[in-house]
Amino acid sequence: MKSLFTLLGILTFVFVFSQNIEEGEAKNIKEFYNIALSEQQAYKWLDHLCNEIGPRPAGSDNADKAAKWAKSELEKIGLENVWLQEVDVPHWVRGEETATLTELIQEHDLAITALGGSVGTPGEGINASVVEVKSFDELEELGEKNIKGKIVFFNIPMDPTNFSTGFSYGMAGKQRWAGAAEASKFGAVAVLTRSLTLKRDNYPHTGSMNYGDAIVKIPAAALSIEATELLHEKLQTNTGLTVKLVLTCKSMERTKGYNVIGEIKGSEKPDEIVLVGGHLDSWDLGTGAQDDGAGSVQSMQVMSLFKKTGYAPKRTHRVVLFMNEEFGLDGAKVYAEYTKENKINHVIALESDGGSGTPRGFSFDTNMETVEAVREFKPLLSPYGLHDYAKGGSGADIGQLKSEGTILIGYRPDNQRYFDYHHAATDQFDIINARELELGAAGMAALLYLMDKYDVEVIQK
Amino acid sequence: MKSLFTLLGILTFVFVFSQNIEEGEAKNIKEFYNIALSEQQAYKWLDHLCNEIGPRPAGSDNADKAAKWAKSELEKIGLENVWLQEVDVPHWVRGEETATLTELIQEHDLAITALGGSVGTPGEGINASVVEVKSFDELEELGEKNIKGKIVFFNIPMDPTNFSTGFSYGMAGKQRWAGAAEASKFGAVAVLTRSLTLKRDNYPHTGSMNYGDAIVKIPAAALSIEATELLHEKLQTNTGLTVKLVLTCKSMERTKGYNVIGEIKGSEKPDEIVLVGGHLDSWDLGTGAQDDGAGSVQSMQVMSLFKKTGYAPKRTHRVVLFMNEEFGLDGAKVYAEYTKENKINHVIALESDGGSGTPRGFSFDTNMETVEAVREFKPLLSPYGLHDYAKGGSGADIGQLKSEGTILIGYRPDNQRYFDYHHAATDQFDIINARELELGAAGMAALLYLMDKYDVEVIQK
Repeated sequence: MKSLFTLLGILTFVFVFSQNIEEGEAKNIKEFYNIALSEQQAYKWLDHLCNEIGPRPAGSDNADKAAKWAKSELEKIGLENVWLQEVDVPHWVRGEETATLTELIQEHDLAITALGGSVGTPGEGINASVVEVKSFDELEELGEKNIKGKIVFFNIPMDPTNFSTGFSYGMAGKQRWAGAAEASKFGAVAVLTRSLTLKRDNYPHTGSMNYGDAIVKIPAAALSIEATELLHEKLQTNTGLTVKLVLTCKSMERTKGYNVIGEIKGSEKPDEIVLVGGHLDSWDLGTGAQDDGAGSVQSMQVMSLFKKTGYAPKRTHRVVLFMNEEFGLDGAKVYAEYTKENKINHVIALESDGGSGTPRGFSFDTNMETVEAVREFKPLLSPYGLHDYAKGGSGADIGQLKSEGTILIGYRPDNQRYFDYHHAATDQFDIINARELELGAAGMAALLYLMDKYDVEVIQK
Repeated sequence: MKSLFTLLGILTFVFVFSQNIEEGEAKNIKEFYNIALSEQQAYKWLDHLCNEIGPRPAGSDNADKAAKWAKSELEKIGLENVWLQEVDVPHWVRGEETATLTELIQEHDLAITALGGSVGTPGEGINASVVEVKSFDELEELGEKNIKGKIVFFNIPMDPTNFSTGFSYGMAGKQRWAGAAEASKFGAVAVLTRSLTLKRDNYPHTGSMNYGDAIVKIPAAALSIEATELLHEKLQTNTGLTVKLVLTCKSMERTKGYNVIGEIKGSEKPDEIVLVGGHLDSWDLGTGAQDDGAGSVQSMQVMSLFKKTGYAPKRTHRVVLFMNEEFGLDGAKVYAEYTKENKINHVIALESDGGSGTPRGFSFDTNMETVEAVREFKPLLSPYGLHDYAKGGSGADIGQLKSEGTILIGYRPDNQRYFDYHHAATDQFDIINARELELGAAGMAALLYLMDKYDVEVIQK
């Protein structure tokens, strides 16, 4: 046992940061949960965002509608300095998308969806034979002589044996974001990639890709898992199969979008900013209920819970709903630039972009001493399912604010179901459990409340 | 902080039970997860149980089919001494069930379902005015003069503000299991009860009730939450409303059912039994996917994982799939009686009957010293979401085996969604997430493996 859990480790854990947490704190924390779980305001907001507004890809009218709606809701809950920050965003639009596998005289429709940023096919489509690869090494080994003129079919599954689905996603992700760029170098005419999900169904999952330094831009689409398995199976007995791919997606002129910002002014240290946020944009296939409608409404709810409990934070607490996390992080970059220009001091930034699962904890991008200080709050938060306080990444949007002085935090809900719906047409309001969503919001509020009240800032080594 | 987390507590936690856990243990544990998550055998079994067999109320043909199927599957995975233990069970059948609210000339159909064990109404139904109560105190205050001849409408919500939905369920449960018995004493002609759920939809939730010492047995049905809210709202402005209730449910002759039992003989202490189980029966409205198809297939999977990893347990490990947990615990009682007669020594019993949510931990019904000993395994299991190791209840079926020498354990998955589907028509295979189900099975296997290997039995005080 001693190799796993040393006494030394425990003493460090408990005594690094000495605070006098008030006796009644558990009751204060419960108040956040009481309001969130009984009023379910975040859930009601999400209903509106998904079912009244809908999909919100960057550059779309819906993205603008969502920004204006969020601004108005933040005003209603009584925030100050509510404004829309203009962001220059790309505007890519999906069109027709079909893939037909021809086997002798039989045709099979394959469920596909264009990857975000892909070029379209020529009007008549691309009809070519298919070469399957299980890794990028295999792609390289096959080389130009086996790939030129063909459609490369990347079939790299997410590893189901990891507890962290996010880790498996990261490991399998290259086929989506760089598959086309790499295959293009060997003369491929298009790529089809296995959807990044652990659920077997017939919904393809989109997501961003880019062409890197590829000279020729070739069309790229994701196959559903059922289509992946069918294509794989057919290729076992017939390597001469052809697939006809038609994609009419295209990039339009860049346009304008908006970050939405609002705040509660700090009572003692108004120039120290605690940021909480998610991203308002979504992919176009579903309505972005979990990605990242959930994080957006949870962030709004954190502010609302501060208002409703009457806690007057020492530091200025600011909600930022970022535009276009999915396809270039433009909103985050604009906000970071604005931060730099105006010398804004973010002491803490918390992002929720891991879905709407039941709470598990938080991940901290800061030094270990600071993480250990935060861990002192664990006895107050673990009764609400918040057990994990690991050093690790935070979030893509707030990652743009990374500096030594800012504690970056990612909210980490359970992620077992997350990739079942991620970037697919199934990311809809009906997959959201109201309680899980609200528990996340209340837990985020509770953490920020404790950090503000007990003055947890970065511990300088 | 000291009031929450004392140094003394930590030292107790770590050093009470001194074991030398092998360095490679994390790898052994991972093997259970690797097999469960990649093969998904529990999920495949559950698919069969729900979609090929279906609802399995005690006394039904499906319950027998399920028992025979489970026996055959346990034989296939190579268990020894696989047998069906006969159990005398009640046989209650649902029939027609309608409730119509009449308001002036307008009629509203209310979504209802008979509570398990309820008597039916007379053929023509019961038409009576409705009196709403929010507590049993209110029922008593109203008394016979306000209740006689009326339908009592129990509208006692589950408290949404508790993190533990099970706790809120317990607090609101009396209306279901004793509402009819209590209202009958004041001359009520029937009861309608608010469904025990935190989700607002139009599905009523059934569950067992009994008449206790009531002299007159009156019909009892649960209302969906939407029907509850409608009835409540209508009663605010019109106290003279009547509801016509028709229930044709009835109790049939008692019949036979079966517990399913199989084992792996212990290599060193074959007479010490480690039991793992769930219940094979379900309510009739859905297909019992989470309650308790999940616990049944997880228990089967624990045995299969022992077989597939090749771990030869020191103690005999036995799976028991109990019949009729829902409506009298008959299978558990028969098994407990058999245990007593044959002087069978259960050192550990683990039940999974908390649904198929993502893993949270275990609850231990044993002395605190033994719980602390088990907690030494936490560093090996918490990477798989198993953080909770509380002293508390275990499960209704294994509860029948309670003795000082047996460690009773309840598997505790996340329960935020559990009551959304509990005892309702929505408890179907499609609400199950394969990974969450399999993580539960692997975690149960890992815990039992560690307890067997490192000889955790009850620590005598």
